[in-house]
Amino acid sequence: MSLVLGLSPIAPIARRSSWSLCGQFPHQHRLWSVSGGGSLEPLNHAPYSSLAREPQLDPVQSRWQRHFSAGSSIMSAPTLTLDNLNPCVKRMEYAVRGPLVIRATELEKEIEKGVKKPFPDVIKANIGDAHAMGNKPITFLRQVLALVTYPELLKSADFPEDAKNRAQTILAGCRGGSAGSYSDSAGIEIIRRHVAQYIEKRDGGTPADWNNIILSAGASESIRAVLKLMISLEGGKSTPGVMIPTPQYPLYSASLAEMNMDQIGYYLNEEKNWALDISELERALNEAKDRCTPRAIVIINPGNPTGSVLSEQNIKDVIKFAHENRLFVFADEVYQNNVYAEGCAFHSFKKASVNILWHCHISIQVMMQMGEPYSHMELASFMSCSKGYMGECGIRGGYAEIINIDKDVRAMLNKSISAKLCPTVIGQACMDVVVHPPEKGDASYESFIAEKEAVLASLAERAKLVADTFNSIEGFTCNVVQGAMYAFPQLHLPEKAIAKAKEHNQNPDVFYAFQLLENTGICIIPGSGFGQRPNTYHFRTTILPQKDMLISMLDRLKTFHLKFLKDYSD
Amino acid sequence: MSLVLGLSPIAPIARRSSWSLCGQFPHQHRLWSVSGGGSLEPLNHAPYSSLAREPQLDPVQSRWQRHFSAGSSIMSAPTLTLDNLNPCVKRMEYAVRGPLVIRATELEKEIEKGVKKPFPDVIKANIGDAHAMGNKPITFLRQVLALVTYPELLKSADFPEDAKNRAQTILAGCRGGSAGSYSDSAGIEIIRRHVAQYIEKRDGGTPADWNNIILSAGASESIRAVLKLMISLEGGKSTPGVMIPTPQYPLYSASLAEMNMDQIGYYLNEEKNWALDISELERALNEAKDRCTPRAIVIINPGNPTGSVLSEQNIKDVIKFAHENRLFVFADEVYQNNVYAEGCAFHSFKKASVNILWHCHISIQVMMQMGEPYSHMELASFMSCSKGYMGECGIRGGYAEIINIDKDVRAMLNKSISAKLCPTVIGQACMDVVVHPPEKGDASYESFIAEKEAVLASLAERAKLVADTFNSIEGFTCNVVQGAMYAFPQLHLPEKAIAKAKEHNQNPDVFYAFQLLENTGICIIPGSGFGQRPNTYHFRTTILPQKDMLISMLDRLKTFHLKFLKDYSD
Repeated sequence: MSLVLGLSPIAPIARRSSWSLCGQFPHQHRLWSVSGGGSLEPLNHAPYSSLAREPQLDPVQSRWQRHFSAGSSIMSAPTLTLDNLNPCVKRMEYAVRGPLVIRATELEKEIEKGVKKPFPDVIKANIGDAHAMGNKPITFLRQVLALVTYPELLKSADFPEDAKNRAQTILAGCRGGSAGSYSDSAGIEIIRRHVAQYIEKRDGGTPADWNNIILSAGASESIRAVLKLMISLEGGKSTPGVMIPTPQYPLYSASLAEMNMDQIGYYLNEEKNWALDISELERALNEAKDRCTPRAIVIINPGNPTGSVLSEQNIKDVIKFAHENRLFVFADEVYQNNVYAEGCAFHSFKKASVNILWHCHISIQVMMQMGEPYSHMELASFMSCSKGYMGECGIRGGYAEIINIDKDVRAMLNKSISAKLCPTVIGQACMDVVVHPPEKGDASYESFIAEKEAVLASLAERAKLVADTFNSIEGFTCNVVQGAMYAFPQLHLPEKAIAKAKEHNQNPDVFYAFQLLENTGICIIPGSGFGQRPNTYHFRTTILPQKDMLISMLDRLKTFHLKFLKDYSD
Repeated sequence: MSLVLGLSPIAPIARRSSWSLCGQFPHQHRLWSVSGGGSLEPLNHAPYSSLAREPQLDPVQSRWQRHFSAGSSIMSAPTLTLDNLNPCVKRMEYAVRGPLVIRATELEKEIEKGVKKPFPDVIKANIGDAHAMGNKPITFLRQVLALVTYPELLKSADFPEDAKNRAQTILAGCRGGSAGSYSDSAGIEIIRRHVAQYIEKRDGGTPADWNNIILSAGASESIRAVLKLMISLEGGKSTPGVMIPTPQYPLYSASLAEMNMDQIGYYLNEEKNWALDISELERALNEAKDRCTPRAIVIINPGNPTGSVLSEQNIKDVIKFAHENRLFVFADEVYQNNVYAEGCAFHSFKKASVNILWHCHISIQVMMQMGEPYSHMELASFMSCSKGYMGECGIRGGYAEIINIDKDVRAMLNKSISAKLCPTVIGQACMDVVVHPPEKGDASYESFIAEKEAVLASLAERAKLVADTFNSIEGFTCNVVQGAMYAFPQLHLPEKAIAKAKEHNQNPDVFYAFQLLENTGICIIPGSGFGQRPNTYHFRTTILPQKDMLISMLDRLKTFHLKFLKDYSD
């Protein structure tokens, strides 16, 4: 007992003695960190790692530090290590938040701390994060969310009537009239009904059933929820395969890796502005059949990272291909409001699948006998409030419309999402405004339309600016950015640069991206993070920085690029 | 071409002709639906299922309907069926939102439609959803969320200064100063720092490092994120096993089933108010070793569904057990603010793991040589904004503090969550208020404390009321509800009732629960949904209905129960 008491004066010192332990390994941070700031720090194994990186260090501490440095080696080893970690988690990669972004965040911190850099600031063009790049929220949308969050405001004269009515409609759909209660796992009924009405209107009257709508925290969550249904425990040729575009948004490659499913990449045709060739789908599918069981096809339209917009005919061809090969169709249509180029329009996979029917059958009777196949295909279409003109990434709202799936499978999907309780109610409310904006005559209509159109016009301008600029720079070719929020230019790198990259054990595009970041502060994502044809090099940049920043970014990039070409000229 | 045109007048009718198709199978709804309202409907395979259950049906339609009924049988079959569905999804169950809840929602709809029932309303005591049961949000919390959502309000005189300051602090942590931008995947730095400060204060100064904090959309998301790390693709004895209490909150059984991991159930000791016996842990572990590789242990404290609160000594014994058996500790501590009973207090697993140390070693030197094992154990503690006094379930906020995990494993965890982008920023902001409430001297301090204490006092009163009432009814025994939000009384069912249930192919407690629901409108969850010793029967009810409703609920329940006993008396 007295021994225990005898401890106490020493204990507090021992407690603090690990302060400098992880400070000893600053170089590690880059290796195994992902999100910004200190979240990159190691969890060292000394006791009270919680005090790691505290500044003070007195002689007593550094004495104890030696003890602990010695002691730490004999401390009990963790039970969970890379050796017994989920191999799928080890395998998966998500470039959009990978090493480049980690380094960019470190550079931001260094600049904050006054470290001199050859550039004034870091420009994160790595991710489609509109508000982070200075795009402003839509007033009506935020008013509704504020009213739903704090209904006291319904008494305030500072809010327009239509915002109040909308908030009251949403609150009436919440149990206990509070956004703080759980909703149904598939979402609040009235919001799902609004989503169905939106789809019906969008698709020129093609009916939509609110029972087919599932709300989710962003599109990613419902994409994973549907993909998950296809997981198989059998390996080898029974491994489920999913066709995804190359280049693609890495959510798909990451999710497939995590779910131990086979990624069947089909190349988009860069020469034809990233069009989707059916012959290439056939090539990819036939090659894959030896190693897995193809189950589904993912199409991203408008394209991420390509910025391409598919034609209606192209979509119909894909649907026929999917039907012939019994593939479940995942239509990633989160950029459906982001179409900029002359002569381009968004066509939904659902509408196309229905419309094929009216052109390929002679009469209703024949249609019946044929079971009008296309309109019966399983199709999941995904939408988000993170993109479009609203760019509400942090709010986490999205939906999936899932049609024609087996009723028992739907029951299993419902059960599966029920264990996740429900998507955030504020995210659901946000989705409600997106699918049901103010209408002519509503108090907020004029201002809403003005804000929405200003954002989209500015995005269209920036889309053109970015592509034109790249095409004006030696060593770049860039397709027209018809839609979405990205350009994916091809880099024509000199042989010497490619050789240099290989010396560094890096993909040439990764080497280029790191050089660009360190020299200009511009963070883009190399094409290898999205997939590209062998021996071609690209990167993805968003078009989201505000015009002035975008121009300055492109200037910096051009200066760097020309010097890079010169330095590595053959 | 003319043929195609010739179609158009007929097409619209054909379109509508499936209206009554799924209407033909109303009985199915119960079988394969989960969430409330129409979300329970089948996705039938007729074209335009989207119009299912529309009221109008004219003769033309019903004529076409016959065609389609015939046609539907020959329509192209779905590619995804129960036969090739993810077997883990098929296996998993989540009783808290299962068939009883679906039926309860149907009853609500029937009552809305004016169908006569032997009860005035449905009381959903199935889930810990405080606001749905009339509990009011905390004013300061909602004010901060409204200000973060719509910063225009920072100009308003209607908000207290401390709420404005808090909102500004949070917005300063958001990229572009907007809650609409993505945060780091682990959450906003300043909020993670506030969480660490909260934990440090809660644990009497035991240091906490904000780098060890991960914010998530409710506790469930981070629980799954950490569990997922242990998934193995190898079967048989290599299957990872996780020890979970019986009874347990079914998130654990559902997640383990979905991740194809082994559930190692250990019984809580009902005779000792659901205490946790180490001998029982040893029994369960030894039995499991033949079929799987035990990797982790989950402890829910305060207990769900049991309402028990563990003593500090009990916690220390569990930690020693976990250490001896090299188990990763999952401490589900989401009810840490819900402790009601005299002489009970919340003790965190983290603090206990650290404090063991000061009593089991002779000197710093010895401690060093022994590597003070307990304070180095891998431990994840989970917290949520859905419970406590705030009950903000729909906002989806939570955190995990994860200490002492291998640095490379932490890197993999970071990578894994990065593909999910980020938890909802509003949910993060909600968590910020929970861990950093107004302090003495702040404008909102008095009202905040008054609201918080009123909620907790009322919960304490209801906790006692529920247990006392059950114990006053023949055929019930109920432990003291020391904490959390539930009572888990044991039902002593007559043999005849048990026999009757078996006739219906139902667990006796499920039979009882359905009888209770159909006769009184009270929805509780049978013990079999949480796990219980063989041949014992329980149910979980929340203590969340407001006092009057709770009293009326208990009255209804008592009347039903006594009649039930009488009807089935031996």
